[in-house]
Amino acid sequence: LAKAGDIFAVKRIVSWGDCDPAGIIYTPRAFDFATEALEAFWRDVIGVNWMDLNWVRHMGAPTVRAECDFIKALKPDMAIEIEVRVLKLGSASLTFGLTCRDVAGDAYFKATYVACTIARPDFKATPIPPDMRARIEAYRAVCGDN
Amino acid sequence: LAKAGDIFAVKRIVSWGDCDPAGIIYTPRAFDFATEALEAFWRDVIGVNWMDLNWVRHMGAPTVRAECDFIKALKPDMAIEIEVRVLKLGSASLTFGLTCRDVAGDAYFKATYVACTIARPDFKATPIPPDMRARIEAYRAVCGDN
Amino acid sequence: LAKAGDIFAVKRIVSWGDCDPAGIIYTPRAFDFATEALEAFWRDVIGVNWMDLNWVRHMGAPTVRAECDFIKALKPDMAIEIEVRVLKLGSASLTFGLTCRDVAGDAYFKATYVACTIARPDFKATPIPPDMRARIEAYRAVCGDN
Amino acid sequence: LAKAGDIFAVKRIVSWGDCDPAGIIYTPRAFDFATEALEAFWRDVIGVNWMDLNWVRHMGAPTVRAECDFIKALKPDMAIEIEVRVLKLGSASLTFGLTCRDVAGDAYFKATYVACTIARPDFKATPIPPDMRARIEAYRAVCGDN
Repeated sequence: LAKAGDIFAVKRIVSWGDCDPAGIIYTPRAFDFATEALEAFWRDVIGVNWMDLNWVRHMGAPTVRAECDFIKALKPDMAIEIEVRVLKLGSASLTFGLTCRDVAGDAYFKATYVACTIARPDFKATPIPPDMRARIEAYRAVCGDN
Repeated sequence: LAKAGDIFAVKRIVSWGDCDPAGIIYTPRAFDFATEALEAFWRDVIGVNWMDLNWVRHMGAPTVRAECDFIKALKPDMAIEIEVRVLKLGSASLTFGLTCRDVAGDAYFKATYVACTIARPDFKATPIPPDMRARIEAYRAVCGDN
Repeated sequence: LAKAGDIFAVKRIVSWGDCDPAGIIYTPRAFDFATEALEAFWRDVIGVNWMDLNWVRHMGAPTVRAECDFIKALKPDMAIEIEVRVLKLGSASLTFGLTCRDVAGDAYFKATYVACTIARPDFKATPIPPDMRARIEAYRAVCGDN
Repeated sequence: LAKAGDIFAVKRIVSWGDCDPAGIIYTPRAFDFATEALEAFWRDVIGVNWMDLNWVRHMGAPTVRAECDFIKALKPDMAIEIEVRVLKLGSASLTFGLTCRDVAGDAYFKATYVACTIARPDFKATPIPPDMRARIEAYRAVCGDN
């Protein structure tokens, strides 16, 4: 199945300002879309927004690698969804898959982000706390490996 | 004289990504250009960059009002300069004039920003410190009222 | 009344990337929010999206003036709405009022945009077409002068 | 040798607005930096800016894949350079390596972009024109394989 209803996804409309003089999405904006979807996933699924992660938990989850394949060119006014999947869950690292689709389900870009969890103030790697890990594992159980 | 050599100005080239599908600058990007020129003015003329202003001086200089008249439309690849003038200097407020020109001196947009100086952590208005004020006054003496 | 249900408004959540190292919204992002709300107003209320305005109608509606008063500082994760009002309707110009509020109705910034309608390819002022004018007038009748 | 003088590089200063509430670069901004360096490379080294590529040559060079490893976190006010290398030159594709360094030569991020050349209006792959290919090959001869 191309897209399960259980997959967390963020809806948005491609804006005029996301696009360049060729009339299609400006390359870096795909990473803005993907990063904002990831931020929403932390807030809504992992249950810790990035402000609290940084200033209450004294942690961070910097992206150490991001990559994106551009499949079709997004254009202004398109209604899209960016789906978020957890591809790998390490002791102090997380790999996310982010797929942008239109309403027909066609894929426009597919990105992969690798983040590591660090502790402030020394920014050394620190294990993902049990409450966050439990929520991520519960999400993976629901959405499967697809 | 259209442009004195004494006016602090930041050079940049309008990028493809600053422009929209109509092939001209996307409106909000003018404020990006103006704000980055202002940031450089703080760093190079007032002598305190915004990181130090916030975390060493425990202050801030939030923009309380910004306005911009769009005169001509910027296009990709244009070499431009954003000039920074201090229009007013209050006890705890600063009014800046920011003019974007091409290499021929033609104006493309003119912005005005009003900032106030505040003290952390309560964000109440606080006077501009004497060392900063002295540098701003010296700049105004050099560049005149134009 | 602080906010009528009849006012067109765009909802969004302030993102981590909209904010700067001081932890509050980076000044130019307010203009991104306002411009995107205006784009949605054209699409949903005036009934002509900016792609069609430019490439089907052979027109444009460039912003000739934008201004913003910053009242309170937006922070990451805040749920906000940007309301769009038509303050003035000229023969070839439009003045919009854009107010950003949180869910309690408190105002965070208030922007005013002036746009003029132009015809391609010579970019000379051209009257707002009757169908668009009728929709704008209908909207003004509903939302009043507030 | 960390950095040959022959490598094309774009200088910039990391701005306050490029950084997020954690005080370090917001992930997508690295792709803005890389894409703008690539744009300058087209303009200055390949000799065809993106406006001319699209509207005079009736071509395009969309990014089909972009990836980035984040090595160290950039902070506001840092002076950096983004170096551009051509890693592969196909008949209708180009692979670029983009390395961001501070003034001491330390690497902060390394990105790879794959672009393909297409012809308008049907967007089908088209060979890199001889004049552009000659300039790219000349650049590769100067900067070597490093």
